[in-house]
Amino acid sequence: MESWNPRNDDGEAARLPDEQRLDWLRLIRSDNVGPRTFRALLNHCGSARAALAALPHLARRGGATRAARVCSREDAERELGAAKALGVTFIAIGEPDYPQRLQMIDDAPPLFAVRGNTAALSLPMVGIVGARNASAAGMRFAERLARDLGAAGFAVVSGLARGIDGAAHRASLGTGTIAALAGGHDQIYPPEHGSLAEAIVMEGALVSEMPMGWEPRARDFPRRNRLISGLAAGVVIVEAAKRSGSLITARMALEQGREVFAVPGSPLDPRTEGSNDLIKQGATLVTEAADVVAVLRPILGQPIEVSAEEPETSSVLGAEPGNDERTRIMELLGPTPVSIDDLVRLSGCSPALVRVVLLELELAGRLERHGGALVSLL
Amino acid sequence: MESWNPRNDDGEAARLPDEQRLDWLRLIRSDNVGPRTFRALLNHCGSARAALAALPHLARRGGATRAARVCSREDAERELGAAKALGVTFIAIGEPDYPQRLQMIDDAPPLFAVRGNTAALSLPMVGIVGARNASAAGMRFAERLARDLGAAGFAVVSGLARGIDGAAHRASLGTGTIAALAGGHDQIYPPEHGSLAEAIVMEGALVSEMPMGWEPRARDFPRRNRLISGLAAGVVIVEAAKRSGSLITARMALEQGREVFAVPGSPLDPRTEGSNDLIKQGATLVTEAADVVAVLRPILGQPIEVSAEEPETSSVLGAEPGNDERTRIMELLGPTPVSIDDLVRLSGCSPALVRVVLLELELAGRLERHGGALVSLL
Repeated sequence: MESWNPRNDDGEAARLPDEQRLDWLRLIRSDNVGPRTFRALLNHCGSARAALAALPHLARRGGATRAARVCSREDAERELGAAKALGVTFIAIGEPDYPQRLQMIDDAPPLFAVRGNTAALSLPMVGIVGARNASAAGMRFAERLARDLGAAGFAVVSGLARGIDGAAHRASLGTGTIAALAGGHDQIYPPEHGSLAEAIVMEGALVSEMPMGWEPRARDFPRRNRLISGLAAGVVIVEAAKRSGSLITARMALEQGREVFAVPGSPLDPRTEGSNDLIKQGATLVTEAADVVAVLRPILGQPIEVSAEEPETSSVLGAEPGNDERTRIMELLGPTPVSIDDLVRLSGCSPALVRVVLLELELAGRLERHGGALVSLL
Repeated sequence: MESWNPRNDDGEAARLPDEQRLDWLRLIRSDNVGPRTFRALLNHCGSARAALAALPHLARRGGATRAARVCSREDAERELGAAKALGVTFIAIGEPDYPQRLQMIDDAPPLFAVRGNTAALSLPMVGIVGARNASAAGMRFAERLARDLGAAGFAVVSGLARGIDGAAHRASLGTGTIAALAGGHDQIYPPEHGSLAEAIVMEGALVSEMPMGWEPRARDFPRRNRLISGLAAGVVIVEAAKRSGSLITARMALEQGREVFAVPGSPLDPRTEGSNDLIKQGATLVTEAADVVAVLRPILGQPIEVSAEEPETSSVLGAEPGNDERTRIMELLGPTPVSIDDLVRLSGCSPALVRVVLLELELAGRLERHGGALVSLL
């Protein structure tokens, strides 16, 4: 069976064979397959190739109304070619270059497309994110913070957005800067940050889990934000209004067990309402890089812990639910998220069977997964 | 013996007889007599009148190089007359009108001179203090906070200074505002706040422990700041640079067991460096009145605890140290603060004897008392 952590005969992390990498790319680019489904499919089918073959059947059993599109070999090869032409390499989870912390999040991308200097990915990272319509003071502070954290040996990871993100990237070009994209590598957003992106490629790295050619839509940004927090040991929110995207990054950082830092501001400035709230809720107040370093230094020495969520206790290879069991599990599901543990308990089915039914529903585009091993019907 | 808590035959708090009030005023206005010495003298001598008689002798024994001035009956009567003419009343500690929380601090003024509407002193109070050179945003926030805390049933106590203090007073005129003065009631500082002071007299109260005619000097302000925090259940610091007077108020609030709140600001604004530091050290971040109310409401229901510092375990009435004991205690003292407990332990003298020797030194102007029952030679 293909593993998350391919090892060579000496037990060292090894590279995925090219043929297998192509299968992985096809699988993650197929309809209704996200990082969690990808993992479940590998567990259920034993390999990406077997999963690709089983996919239409599973989706049909999950109640797909139309055939789920499986990414063709030709499409995947075309993407690999376009990526290569742009200098993008795909790193598979478990490979030596895959960023260590990111690997531990629950929904780590199976393939991570990197353009630029991969060395930056091996530094300890701090996220710096904030308002697009940042104040001049906020921009200046983000620059100072990024420069000082760079001097302290941290790479800065951010989202290439206008405002705080751009300021943080610019100030850390010389020391290590990583921009996580919400679209494909050939779809730099915002367009006016094209030259900044080129500068980052020279000095740091652009990273993305989205296909080449993918234009980022609104809902891709929260998804991208989990990469920023997932890559970093902690995230600093510089200016954030209430209900802003930066607060989503903060929430994801908390869910991933990352440290959350926030820069205070006047209670009369709506641009800092969100960051002040974060401090009220327990985020560390930051007025200088030393505040961040003091919290993160001790953590960097510790071994990175594997996420405890949804442990893969046993392979579900070959588990085959009967119609009766499928019906029982289906009846327990609705639009309100329920825990997978409860589904197992209330259905009386084995965890393996429940997982397969959920996988089928997911491939049929009928299931949504939430944090904390919760699922709901779409 | 005169008590801190005069009671009538029914056990209710009673008023001090006029003659005794005059003795108290003379004693607290005599050289080298502060609130702590006043209390020690009452304990040692049994009454203010006996203390006035014993004072020159005690100061001589403490090594006074020149005769310590005892406030004459005439001077005290003159002050009472001037006070009356200005509408100022003296409230003695233990009397029903004496503010409850203030009574519990270690160095509560024995006599508290109040001008205005004493009803404001019976409301729960919040201190609002901050920079004299406040920003427009800081002033606006102080006004909003004072108004909202007033609406929530709190009186606002502050220092009548320019900037934040003045803004807080103005916005709480209608709901209850108290200004603690660093000088006498006839010496309003700063002079341009004369009309604000008159408005406060109409609606709230001016309070002072200093003699009529006393022009405030730099060192009187920290002393005054302990009244602001002592009156209040908590203190909000609105804008405070590093090493500013407002931070002294915050420190005193902590020493007195009061809640400390701070309003955040941009790390690039030196006017909020001190308040941001307070939050780092554990002060509650405040962006609206509700943040203060949430912390203080539960406290207001609790009985006010008596300060545990330097308990008066037994009367030292009549204890008379011999020369030998005095020398032993003197030798243990120096410019470095030592605890009274250590003096007792190391000298082998009784606590009562140690206290008398310290009292003598204090009256001779040779001893300084610090927080935490520490003393040092001057």
